[in-house]
Amino acid sequence: MALVVKKFGGSSVANAERVMNVAGRITDTYKEGNSVVVVVSAQGDTTDDLIALANEINPKHSKREMDMLLSTGEQISISLLAMAIEKLGFPVISLTGWQLGMITDSNYGAARIQKIQTERIKKELDKNNIVIVAGFQGINRFGDITTLGRGGSDTSAVAIAAALHADLCEIYTDVDGVYTADPRIVPDAKKLNEITYDEMLELASLGANVLHNRSVELAKKYRVNLEVKSSFEKVPGTVVKEEIKVERMLVRGVTRDNDVARIAIMGVKDEPGIAFRIFSLLSKHKINVDIILQSIGRDNKKDISFTVSEGSADETMDIIQQNMEMIGAENVTCSKEFSKVSIVGAGMVNNPGVAAMMFEALFDVGVNIHMISTSESKISVLVKKANAEKAVRAIHNKFDFTE
Amino acid sequence: MALVVKKFGGSSVANAERVMNVAGRITDTYKEGNSVVVVVSAQGDTTDDLIALANEINPKHSKREMDMLLSTGEQISISLLAMAIEKLGFPVISLTGWQLGMITDSNYGAARIQKIQTERIKKELDKNNIVIVAGFQGINRFGDITTLGRGGSDTSAVAIAAALHADLCEIYTDVDGVYTADPRIVPDAKKLNEITYDEMLELASLGANVLHNRSVELAKKYRVNLEVKSSFEKVPGTVVKEEIKVERMLVRGVTRDNDVARIAIMGVKDEPGIAFRIFSLLSKHKINVDIILQSIGRDNKKDISFTVSEGSADETMDIIQQNMEMIGAENVTCSKEFSKVSIVGAGMVNNPGVAAMMFEALFDVGVNIHMISTSESKISVLVKKANAEKAVRAIHNKFDFTE
Repeated sequence: MALVVKKFGGSSVANAERVMNVAGRITDTYKEGNSVVVVVSAQGDTTDDLIALANEINPKHSKREMDMLLSTGEQISISLLAMAIEKLGFPVISLTGWQLGMITDSNYGAARIQKIQTERIKKELDKNNIVIVAGFQGINRFGDITTLGRGGSDTSAVAIAAALHADLCEIYTDVDGVYTADPRIVPDAKKLNEITYDEMLELASLGANVLHNRSVELAKKYRVNLEVKSSFEKVPGTVVKEEIKVERMLVRGVTRDNDVARIAIMGVKDEPGIAFRIFSLLSKHKINVDIILQSIGRDNKKDISFTVSEGSADETMDIIQQNMEMIGAENVTCSKEFSKVSIVGAGMVNNPGVAAMMFEALFDVGVNIHMISTSESKISVLVKKANAEKAVRAIHNKFDFTE
Repeated sequence: MALVVKKFGGSSVANAERVMNVAGRITDTYKEGNSVVVVVSAQGDTTDDLIALANEINPKHSKREMDMLLSTGEQISISLLAMAIEKLGFPVISLTGWQLGMITDSNYGAARIQKIQTERIKKELDKNNIVIVAGFQGINRFGDITTLGRGGSDTSAVAIAAALHADLCEIYTDVDGVYTADPRIVPDAKKLNEITYDEMLELASLGANVLHNRSVELAKKYRVNLEVKSSFEKVPGTVVKEEIKVERMLVRGVTRDNDVARIAIMGVKDEPGIAFRIFSLLSKHKINVDIILQSIGRDNKKDISFTVSEGSADETMDIIQQNMEMIGAENVTCSKEFSKVSIVGAGMVNNPGVAAMMFEALFDVGVNIHMISTSESKISVLVKKANAEKAVRAIHNKFDFTE
């Protein structure tokens, strides 16, 4: 008799057969006596198709109208999934973002959840309905439709689980859990039975595409029991939680992220305030900066380099170039030839041997390291894109992932 | 400086090029200093595609979920049209049925408008925005999405024009006005410059597919100035209004409607209350009955026959057959081999010569009449489907449509 929130991604509901399959998974849980809330994404390529429609008419559309358009994708999914559950003979109702009271700010295209008015969902659960809700979308205080941006449906699911104090939030995806590395790159990568929020956070932000880090942050904040499972196979997944058994491997996984552009600003004055000027400028334009490196000053000059996502690279270059004088730089370059390869594990910072092992693995296969960044629970290096898969395999071999 | 409501149907916004064309028509009116509210239907085949998706999963879906699904069609149109207007550089905002406060009853699939909360539209007009609204859809008092059924977008447009006290409501369609007959059947059919609400009502309910009769009823009730125009050509259309000049042709048009099934109930007792039983039974099941004929009683028995739409025929037969005893009938049959051919013109009832001319035209070309029904402003006959086009042409030739 638990309250379970289940989230299914776009590929899980891509066609009629898969929608029926998902309906079966949902009603299995309901039949066991549980209350079930289901969060669904837009079907398969629907979002891409809608974006193409918009770009054909006006590539410079407002974000407000884009959210109006995109939100139809999940509305189609929820109604079709509800119809599939009706077919199986169970009581069901679908709710859009505005109907379920998903209140967000007005940052169209990347809105943040402010609160969830749970009255409607609770009323439907009290009527013993299976409740199918649209992920990714919300409504602002002006009554306009917003979308949550990348990873939005995962975030919707975790936020709803938190608001309803659900016993479990299951994220169904096309893989059956979180692996020590991408199995397409490392065939003997192992599935993790358990992982902590912090480790999952690092993995998510370092390119493991299983869960979006916004949703993991939210799960950590509200202590939501999260499980990543396969939509297609009925096997146990990976449980994300606060603490896991102590006797376990330090390094939990290896990731690769190709969505990296390196910006190098050369020849800035070696004086206080330069870095502040650059990064406050970028933050004003809402550009997320990842690894930042600053060279040691020489002849009163230094270089500052940092990485951004490839999608932000052109805008970043424009901003820097328009402000060369204010920054006082000689030159700025952008390179998209790098990938970021990382290892993740809680408490890594206290084990210097881990970094050495990682660098040794790269040296063994002759991969040059272009940037290094470390944190409490991860070590990232920038390597040439062409070397990234080789690097992941070498590192994965170096560490022992047997639990 | 007028307030104009414009309605564009699905074929007018079927692709990017047409959406841009419609955007141009809208901004032309806005540039002249008018306030503009635009009502749009779903693009081209979108509604049919969504119905197919639903039927693939569950042909017996609930109407509530179907409305959830179908309402995405107009939501896509309004956002794309708003983006097209943004491209032309004009201020614009799109609103769904629930955003514009289109309050309906809960009769999913065929909801009736109860009121329109115009605050949001007025606020956007005050900001000088062109307001693009979704036709066909509304919201009930439980916060669930409803659709208005056939002709819903026309009805939305007229209702909004009435609520805003608009100066004009223009219905753009793929023909350039109301004709004296379907030009595909009668090549020399003439476009009418003006027509009364009552005449338009008769034409609409008799198979002229230009305007749905619900919208004309509403326009008549609230005295909305209505004009039917072409989406593609910039030519004057047909103005629908209360009174038009007196010196004009009595017969305003000839229509053909193939969506007719004739039900004949044979051998019922010739006593009071039989017709009441039958038609109150059908009205309880929300079946619309059109022409009703009752034979003269003989041997204390009579026959009652009537027409319904083809879509209602099977349900009607089921209801009658399940109640044969209560009705006291010997036999019931259903035929779908008929079409309804009608002539329309205000004040026709006072000119018996008109009916005679119509029947003569049919006699001239050897077309047999199976049922006749007359009203204040129309005469309808049931003829074999195969003869319907010949009948329309013969009648159109008989009357002089030169204005």
